[in-house]
Amino acid sequence: MNEHQKIAVFGGGSWATAIVKMLTENMETVGWYMRNTASIRYIKENDHNPKYLSSAELDANHLDLSNDINYMVANYEVLIFAIPSAFLTTELHKLKESLAGKTIFSAIKGIVPETGLIVGEHFNTIYEIPLENIGVITGPCHAEEVAMERLSYLTIACQDEEKAKKMSKALESDYIKTKISDDIIGTEYAAMLKNIYAVAAGIAHGLGYGDNFQSVLMSNSIREMKRFIKKVHKMKRNINDSAYLGDLLVTGYSTFSRNRQFGNMVGKGYTVKSAQMEMSMIAEGYYATKSAFKIKEDNGTKTPIIDAVYTILYDNKNPKKEFKKLTNKLD
Amino acid sequence: MNEHQKIAVFGGGSWATAIVKMLTENMETVGWYMRNTASIRYIKENDHNPKYLSSAELDANHLDLSNDINYMVANYEVLIFAIPSAFLTTELHKLKESLAGKTIFSAIKGIVPETGLIVGEHFNTIYEIPLENIGVITGPCHAEEVAMERLSYLTIACQDEEKAKKMSKALESDYIKTKISDDIIGTEYAAMLKNIYAVAAGIAHGLGYGDNFQSVLMSNSIREMKRFIKKVHKMKRNINDSAYLGDLLVTGYSTFSRNRQFGNMVGKGYTVKSAQMEMSMIAEGYYATKSAFKIKEDNGTKTPIIDAVYTILYDNKNPKKEFKKLTNKLD
Repeated sequence: MNEHQKIAVFGGGSWATAIVKMLTENMETVGWYMRNTASIRYIKENDHNPKYLSSAELDANHLDLSNDINYMVANYEVLIFAIPSAFLTTELHKLKESLAGKTIFSAIKGIVPETGLIVGEHFNTIYEIPLENIGVITGPCHAEEVAMERLSYLTIACQDEEKAKKMSKALESDYIKTKISDDIIGTEYAAMLKNIYAVAAGIAHGLGYGDNFQSVLMSNSIREMKRFIKKVHKMKRNINDSAYLGDLLVTGYSTFSRNRQFGNMVGKGYTVKSAQMEMSMIAEGYYATKSAFKIKEDNGTKTPIIDAVYTILYDNKNPKKEFKKLTNKLD
Repeated sequence: MNEHQKIAVFGGGSWATAIVKMLTENMETVGWYMRNTASIRYIKENDHNPKYLSSAELDANHLDLSNDINYMVANYEVLIFAIPSAFLTTELHKLKESLAGKTIFSAIKGIVPETGLIVGEHFNTIYEIPLENIGVITGPCHAEEVAMERLSYLTIACQDEEKAKKMSKALESDYIKTKISDDIIGTEYAAMLKNIYAVAAGIAHGLGYGDNFQSVLMSNSIREMKRFIKKVHKMKRNINDSAYLGDLLVTGYSTFSRNRQFGNMVGKGYTVKSAQMEMSMIAEGYYATKSAFKIKEDNGTKTPIIDAVYTILYDNKNPKKEFKKLTNKLD
């Protein structure tokens, strides 16, 4: 159906694996870059990823696997990045091939720590990729449910409608419905901000707040998100669309969310450092909090929830006291 | 603090008990009408309700308990109704005392089955209570968390701001924060509609849809609720405030919600009748669906979720097929 598009996925984690699975439903060949050569060998022999989303069946006959990022960029036109934001710059520094003329979709949902930019902005600013060649693939979507082929809805954002439509067609199937949008900035900020609100939900849960409070926290979170995104990029959007509110809810109400788990440990009294060590990975919301706080300091948006999470994570303030203060600012 | 207001609560269930508990934090005497004389005796002796919310500690010294509805109406000025909507008219038919001059707050969150009206409209239409004497007490608030004194937020709606403020003061405490609103129609419709969406969430869960779909369903539900309420009573409101979105979320994401449980059984294949018998009570959302469907038929609002629930509950259509059709209308 989409044989004329050459699409490659960059990243070996759960979300990258889920996207590869979706694409193989429609395409003869999908390029797939990951660093880990042992995983590549395993996938070729066993038709599933040994380390992430291992329940997802993949057909290696339709995969062009490589751990050479330059091979992948040279041979594919549409590049989907699903590498954790913390590792993105390290990977991109390996590039000798040019990104000029490529279409780049971000499926990262985070901030590039080194530049404090969302991924689309990073490619636009640092690699001079024109905005019409940049897109975003966003949920609400847990990769685990894609593996189980449970019905999920994706939003594909690109200012070039044709590119958004092509990517939609490449991803949709019996269990994936897609919708297009031209809000590349808003959808990517929403995907990033929701991780902070998931950390907040986790802290609240860790502190012993109940379901009544969680619903108030989510109600305030979506209003705060709306203010924040409007300040960054004003355009007509319905903040209650799935790409914004749905994405917030699937993360904020999920006990599987790494951001929520991280917040939960902090709420229970772990130090930030020990929570990170215990989880053996750093939740995206940790970086997102720092960047979002800086942005709101610059543009003056009222963000009591981001502020509370920031002071807890970066100023080592007492979560119980900070949330007590926060409860007086919510309604 | 509020000794000058004479407030009585009508109803013996969980939510009535929670409201009584909140009021006794602030008031010397709270009137409490319930039918069951055995429960009244038990509360007087043991300081808690034996049948509902039995973990909530109540101080009987501050309660004026009676099973005589006329005594209660004659002796109190502000009447809070927290009787399940299915029993409201039966109770009101016992009235010989006039309701003229009384202030009436609805904490019922349902439709009066006999008239198809929300409770405020019912008192306004049938008992000619002027709108400025009618108020609404709404969540997001599970009664169970009030019993545990977990922080919860209430919205008190009344067109007479003074009356809303007085009721707010009577209810607020260390664990209850309140907010006032003048949207008595919208808040009460929201409280009613959210039960339908909780039934829908239950059906989806019973059919095997996952968290990704639930978040899309809730995102579409709040947009549908906004359209519905706007058509019924147009005014400036933020549908993402706690009284609307928060209330939807606390119910839609709660496994304790009777409406969600009811929907879950229907989704799993129980007939409506057998699900109701199994639960030994009828979920508010069952009546709400019929009334909301009639209202939207009259005013032409686009309500795919209400329509799907209606055809399943009242036309005995197959839940799996109806939800399959519904998934194509959501985004």
